[in-house]
Amino acid sequence: MNRMMSFGLSMRYLGYHAASWRHPDANPRGGMQFAHFAEVARKAEAAGFDMLFLADGIGIRTVDSPVGALAQTAQTADLEPLTLLSALSAVTTNIGLVATASTTYNEPFHVARKYASLDRISGGRAGWNIVTSWSEAEAWNFGRDTHLGYAERYERAYEFADVVEGLWHSWGTDAIVADKKTGIFLDTSRLRVLNHKGPHFRVRGPLDVPPSPQGHPVMVQAGASDAGIELAARKAEVVYALPHDLQMAESYSRRLRGALEQHGRDPRGIRILAGITPYIGATMAEAQEKYDAMNALILPELGLSYLYAQLGDLSAFPLDGPVPDPVDPRVRSIAQGLITMARSRNMTIRQLYNFIAAGFGSRVVIGTPESIVDEMQEWFETGFVDGFNLCPALLPMDIDSFSNHILPELRRRGLARTGYAGSTLRANLGLPMPGCCYPA
Amino acid sequence: MNRMMSFGLSMRYLGYHAASWRHPDANPRGGMQFAHFAEVARKAEAAGFDMLFLADGIGIRTVDSPVGALAQTAQTADLEPLTLLSALSAVTTNIGLVATASTTYNEPFHVARKYASLDRISGGRAGWNIVTSWSEAEAWNFGRDTHLGYAERYERAYEFADVVEGLWHSWGTDAIVADKKTGIFLDTSRLRVLNHKGPHFRVRGPLDVPPSPQGHPVMVQAGASDAGIELAARKAEVVYALPHDLQMAESYSRRLRGALEQHGRDPRGIRILAGITPYIGATMAEAQEKYDAMNALILPELGLSYLYAQLGDLSAFPLDGPVPDPVDPRVRSIAQGLITMARSRNMTIRQLYNFIAAGFGSRVVIGTPESIVDEMQEWFETGFVDGFNLCPALLPMDIDSFSNHILPELRRRGLARTGYAGSTLRANLGLPMPGCCYPA
Repeated sequence: MNRMMSFGLSMRYLGYHAASWRHPDANPRGGMQFAHFAEVARKAEAAGFDMLFLADGIGIRTVDSPVGALAQTAQTADLEPLTLLSALSAVTTNIGLVATASTTYNEPFHVARKYASLDRISGGRAGWNIVTSWSEAEAWNFGRDTHLGYAERYERAYEFADVVEGLWHSWGTDAIVADKKTGIFLDTSRLRVLNHKGPHFRVRGPLDVPPSPQGHPVMVQAGASDAGIELAARKAEVVYALPHDLQMAESYSRRLRGALEQHGRDPRGIRILAGITPYIGATMAEAQEKYDAMNALILPELGLSYLYAQLGDLSAFPLDGPVPDPVDPRVRSIAQGLITMARSRNMTIRQLYNFIAAGFGSRVVIGTPESIVDEMQEWFETGFVDGFNLCPALLPMDIDSFSNHILPELRRRGLARTGYAGSTLRANLGLPMPGCCYPA
Repeated sequence: MNRMMSFGLSMRYLGYHAASWRHPDANPRGGMQFAHFAEVARKAEAAGFDMLFLADGIGIRTVDSPVGALAQTAQTADLEPLTLLSALSAVTTNIGLVATASTTYNEPFHVARKYASLDRISGGRAGWNIVTSWSEAEAWNFGRDTHLGYAERYERAYEFADVVEGLWHSWGTDAIVADKKTGIFLDTSRLRVLNHKGPHFRVRGPLDVPPSPQGHPVMVQAGASDAGIELAARKAEVVYALPHDLQMAESYSRRLRGALEQHGRDPRGIRILAGITPYIGATMAEAQEKYDAMNALILPELGLSYLYAQLGDLSAFPLDGPVPDPVDPRVRSIAQGLITMARSRNMTIRQLYNFIAAGFGSRVVIGTPESIVDEMQEWFETGFVDGFNLCPALLPMDIDSFSNHILPELRRRGLARTGYAGSTLRANLGLPMPGCCYPA
């Protein structure tokens, strides 16, 4: 069988453009309404996406941005990912459901249990995007004055993921006997007490949720720093990457696949999905017009707030001047990538914030269906990426434009499958069952 | 308008009888399957129940019971309540969704956010059953050697509930402006930073979920100890009580309504729902037969495990002898109630475990539709209870027998309403909106 592209749909808010709520066609309150997401999910499933993907932050990160920005963003009002995906599981049948949960301010038993429950409820369609929390705004909601340092929060994340995986392995797939005649429901020899004792967690187990048709939820990871790559190499089956050009994609892919080999894992046994926010037009000029028209809806305070978390407060600098060096020396890998890109393209502050606010950090691609498909094909055929995580500028409309203009052409070229390969997320991504690890 | 009975449906596992999975009509794996609960929820909604209710424990409490009991129970395999109710919200439209979450091993920000999300997703039908965790088996899943002491875990619970309520009040109902023309989405003066600083929690807020059509989730409580009553008097709008006779119901009601007055609350401004597990027959003899037939499915190890948490290991005592004094002196109020009842009815150990295992601690009533309705009417008209939380022995079958034989007669007598009063849980329970507390 040919290698086929995998597709995620990132569906936060009204789309990934900062001012999508101001678009004439947008339902500005949709980001807080179940009906909005149900429509998005149904469209994505009809189009054959492998999975819905929900990023997350635990609290309002922008509450300390300039006040104007807080008033201007629709990305403060939200629904909690696991709750939302659980509800969406009941109105979909094939599409995967991947929710972000932080290892920094959670307990592994809760995470293991909730995701295993979603996995059973959905018939084996759940995935866990493993993240660490890095913002002060989140720390303040959990009794801390500052967020955990980089090394410490990743050490916690490694152990957290070990515990979750261990709990998911606490039931043999054949543990439930349910023999009405003898009265034996459970083969207790197939239930394993984990008894984890580590520096961050002591968790006894077993979990109270048996395995799903896909064994347990798919593990997803999205960080590109060294510790993020290490986490991915240890646990991830899917990674969500944010390369802004093919060179970044290559470098990321080499680092990740190298790290997999070091861990004794198959370097191809992971799906790399690159974030993409396309602005599609019948001509290049039309696509550019669409992009410019949406950016015209971004007020400057809002635009600057998109640089705030990565580059600090730039409101004292001229909007149409060059991007200055970061004020805060604790620059994260994502910030360094942005600066490099801005310099290489001679971007002004306004152009940079438009670029980011147009896709919330995902790669913005402006073009015709053909140019976009060509580029996707090129990326895919290098082997540096295995598919794409669509981060539509405007929801639900931009699913339609992707489904109508991009996917059919990819299918015509034999790069994307038609319909679903199976009913579980693993089956659709071509990932193996994790059955090996169950109690002997 | 006449005062009407309120109804909850407690829907854990395959029903509240310990051996329900062995019943010839049972789907023994249903307790881990969404389809089972979806059928239960649809039946309950068709019958007009005010709310679905899910009890919870975080882990397998019986893992240390005699091994036989662990093998014999279907109550180890479970789905996490909030995940399950979120999924059920998408297949129902009017029924309330009340999930238990412990204040002992959670963070208030997570609980506030997840329940507020379910409340929005369901259009204002969520409720939070506030509990504390008292078992060692749960403590071991969260890094502790023993569970928190009684006083400490209730002090934590009071503060936890304060924080959750405070976070729910962090959005004014009119905070979202969504004015596309000016670009103002949010009236920031209607968003409140909580800044809670207490002995157990420091939580800044605000929450990232705006209010639902019922303001925020209904607060529910189920403990009958002094500290439990205090928690109910501070926060609860609904209580779930487990009186085994009218005298216990009276005593509980007087304590609770007295405590409400002491807190300056309307003593009638709370709904007391009494747990009830009916065994219904066309004649008394038929009902008794039904009860006996189900109890014949309980193996002794399983039966004794139902006394284990409250009364300790009684396996050394003769099954058909009297109930001994508790081995463990840390007797909880629920245990004392059981012993009192067993003594007053001259029950043997086997009779007591049958009685408990037949309803998992809720009041077992064996009778004809008329005798059961008479008793429900008597209880309701004393004013000691405002309704009932049905804990069916066998799901989904026993919803049908209740809907077909009990509810029509209650309606005929003008004690139960027909259809739903509104689309939110508050509207159906006749509870006021909590709007008073929103930022001025």
